[in-house]
Amino acid sequence: MSTEIKALVFDVFGTVVDWRSSIILESREIGAAKNISRDWESFADSWRSKYGPFMNKVRQGSLSWTNLDDLHYMALEELLSEFEIQDFDDNDKKNLNTAWHRLDPWPDAIQGLNKLRESYIIAPLSNGNLALLTNMAKRAGLPWDCILSAELAHAYKPDQEVYRMAAKLLGLAPGQLLMVAAHPGDLMASQQAGLQTAFIPRPFEHGQNQNSNTDAETISHFDIVAKDIVDLAYQLSYSRDSR
Amino acid sequence: MSTEIKALVFDVFGTVVDWRSSIILESREIGAAKNISRDWESFADSWRSKYGPFMNKVRQGSLSWTNLDDLHYMALEELLSEFEIQDFDDNDKKNLNTAWHRLDPWPDAIQGLNKLRESYIIAPLSNGNLALLTNMAKRAGLPWDCILSAELAHAYKPDQEVYRMAAKLLGLAPGQLLMVAAHPGDLMASQQAGLQTAFIPRPFEHGQNQNSNTDAETISHFDIVAKDIVDLAYQLSYSRDSR
Repeated sequence: MSTEIKALVFDVFGTVVDWRSSIILESREIGAAKNISRDWESFADSWRSKYGPFMNKVRQGSLSWTNLDDLHYMALEELLSEFEIQDFDDNDKKNLNTAWHRLDPWPDAIQGLNKLRESYIIAPLSNGNLALLTNMAKRAGLPWDCILSAELAHAYKPDQEVYRMAAKLLGLAPGQLLMVAAHPGDLMASQQAGLQTAFIPRPFEHGQNQNSNTDAETISHFDIVAKDIVDLAYQLSYSRDSR
Repeated sequence: MSTEIKALVFDVFGTVVDWRSSIILESREIGAAKNISRDWESFADSWRSKYGPFMNKVRQGSLSWTNLDDLHYMALEELLSEFEIQDFDDNDKKNLNTAWHRLDPWPDAIQGLNKLRESYIIAPLSNGNLALLTNMAKRAGLPWDCILSAELAHAYKPDQEVYRMAAKLLGLAPGQLLMVAAHPGDLMASQQAGLQTAFIPRPFEHGQNQNSNTDAETISHFDIVAKDIVDLAYQLSYSRDSR
């Protein structure tokens, strides 16, 4: 890495927070309150699986700009129909939809971010909308310096505009940003936009039976590989000290 | 006030930070390093007085979208010429221009914001660009939940789009926002956009000889008048308790 890093921007769902456990928990709770029993793990996985296709409608222009809260809601309506759940009223649905604002961080996230914040500007750079990310940070205690959201570009990652917007809004060159993510596609797109990259595998993002090992060849393209956010802080501090 | 307040958005220059003292100090320091002696109080006041006219060029369309850092820089070039200062090189000018990122808060600001943050989302809603506001918050310890800037609307206050954008990005109705400012014009415009309003007079924003008392009739239009941000937190907590 040549350019000095000034800011770290983070993918959020899966990289900083464990969306799956939180969504399973809240779905199960709302279901229990209505005496509805379903496979809530499948329910959470199916909901998440609709995220890509719905976002692509916006990215490909068949749906005009729609923020993630609204896409989640459209996906939820489909999902409830597929799981044959009729007893959720509008309040239940709105409440469940904002479960995405109440995701719990991975165990290392708060400690790692607090450490990184001493030396860098830190911000999410997520497809989540600004309200979602703000509410999540406030509840979970994520110590962001500012909230960057794809919503501010009216585009979704991995579109290049999102990464470029982040650099522009921070008043930095793309190479002064380090994109941190558990997803190679996100990192490769940010690399094309000129950002530096740190890969954090999250082997349990999709549960205990996750089968999505990233191959070594792909990983070799990233500037840093860290086992979690605390390790990332350690590696960056070590590389500063040894300069 | 009828609607329940969910978020407080703050004007920053003059309301949260004492721009004048900070700008005088940094100008004097850079001047001293170059053996340049000037009336740095007038220098700071003149710089600030160019803020409105430059912003109006953008608001009226004679200048395409330009963020506040860049407007400050254009104004600085004019100012240096008016004060017959030739010895500031590009680095001096860039350094001085980012003095606007390093403004000190009023003595009550941090304590008041930390208190308010327990019950509300708090954010700046300033004409300062996002990088400026983020750097300022990080240096001064302003505990914002997110950074809202006029830059995100490509418009400047008091244009209505700025206030409406704030509500939209927070996922709230305009009436759920309380705009906090030391400037009646900002508050009146936010009121037209449907926000609630809190006025905090800052009698020393323009120095000890400030002569800009706001008349009682104007003040009567605002929902809250507080003597500082700590007092605002106290008044809001009292009105919650007595509900």
